[in-house]
Amino acid sequence: MTGDQRVTRGMRSRSTITRRAVDVASIEGLSGLSFGSLAADVGLSKGGVAALFPTKEQLQVATVESAREVFLEAVVQPTSAVPSGAARLKALIERWIAYAEAPLFPGGCFWAANLPDFDSRPGPVRDSLARQRRSWLALLAEQVSQAIAAGEVTGLDPELTAFQIDALLNSANIAMRLGETGGADKVRRVIDGLLA
Amino acid sequence: MTGDQRVTRGMRSRSTITRRAVDVASIEGLSGLSFGSLAADVGLSKGGVAALFPTKEQLQVATVESAREVFLEAVVQPTSAVPSGAARLKALIERWIAYAEAPLFPGGCFWAANLPDFDSRPGPVRDSLARQRRSWLALLAEQVSQAIAAGEVTGLDPELTAFQIDALLNSANIAMRLGETGGADKVRRVIDGLLA
Repeated sequence: MTGDQRVTRGMRSRSTITRRAVDVASIEGLSGLSFGSLAADVGLSKGGVAALFPTKEQLQVATVESAREVFLEAVVQPTSAVPSGAARLKALIERWIAYAEAPLFPGGCFWAANLPDFDSRPGPVRDSLARQRRSWLALLAEQVSQAIAAGEVTGLDPELTAFQIDALLNSANIAMRLGETGGADKVRRVIDGLLA
Repeated sequence: MTGDQRVTRGMRSRSTITRRAVDVASIEGLSGLSFGSLAADVGLSKGGVAALFPTKEQLQVATVESAREVFLEAVVQPTSAVPSGAARLKALIERWIAYAEAPLFPGGCFWAANLPDFDSRPGPVRDSLARQRRSWLALLAEQVSQAIAAGEVTGLDPELTAFQIDALLNSANIAMRLGETGGADKVRRVIDGLLA
């Protein structure tokens, strides 16, 4: 095997491991990740996994980044053809609801499952989760701004509206996980009211 | 020691253990509770703790009930003298913000820290957390209904408004834990708008 092949194989293993780790962490939390179980799940040796991720923290940060990629692909990218502003915002919200309902990760929203665990523990895992949260809020706020600029809505503060939308989506995710019905419809009713 | 004394001492130990467990679980999660650490923290033997809580699940459920008692005492009971309706609702919200800001538990909101962990795991711990969440939402909805009945607000759906308020408070808690500023003010601005 050439050096290039080894690098390619290493990258493929890395992404196989982190993708599996995302699913595990959506249920067990990032703290519940174990080198041994992950290795068994993806058919590698424990040493092989440890060679790619020397510390558990590095594995956790890589898992958070992998979750972000899956999220962007499932929720954000499909809306890129939708006109920006109110239409894009509604498309993002519907995609998010589908993401939580489907669900893309077996334990539901990855950030909802892990932010509360890590928000009191300073370090690179918390930093990465927090950065992704800010980026999602900024994306929502940007579309509210575009909707205002296009005259589609009035009287809204973009940052405040993004905070509200994100809060509602997170609560709908909890409601879905608990088997309560109507969470997604509650989100739609409030957001329709906001954007009316 | 008489039988009565033994029962009293058992109850006191029970409540000492669960109160400590609430603090631990607000940071580490209910899954992070350990008989050994708790015993060391409260100065009992591990066997003494295990005698009071034969299974980890029983310890977790008792911890959830203990968290509820502390929450009621800190957030709900102080508002009982405030007139019901909009005033009581605002008092509950301010008490909740103080509860998350203070914070009453070292890891912030106990339910925010534990619901996402347990919402995908059917069983008595999830049932207890879910029941408490419904009870909090019902309390908020009841005060919205009272505000409507008193003519203090119009055009609100009590259940939907309770869902919104709870969602905003949870997001403010996450924002506070992450060191973001302005979360509590965002909640106040949205709620003032709703109750205007």
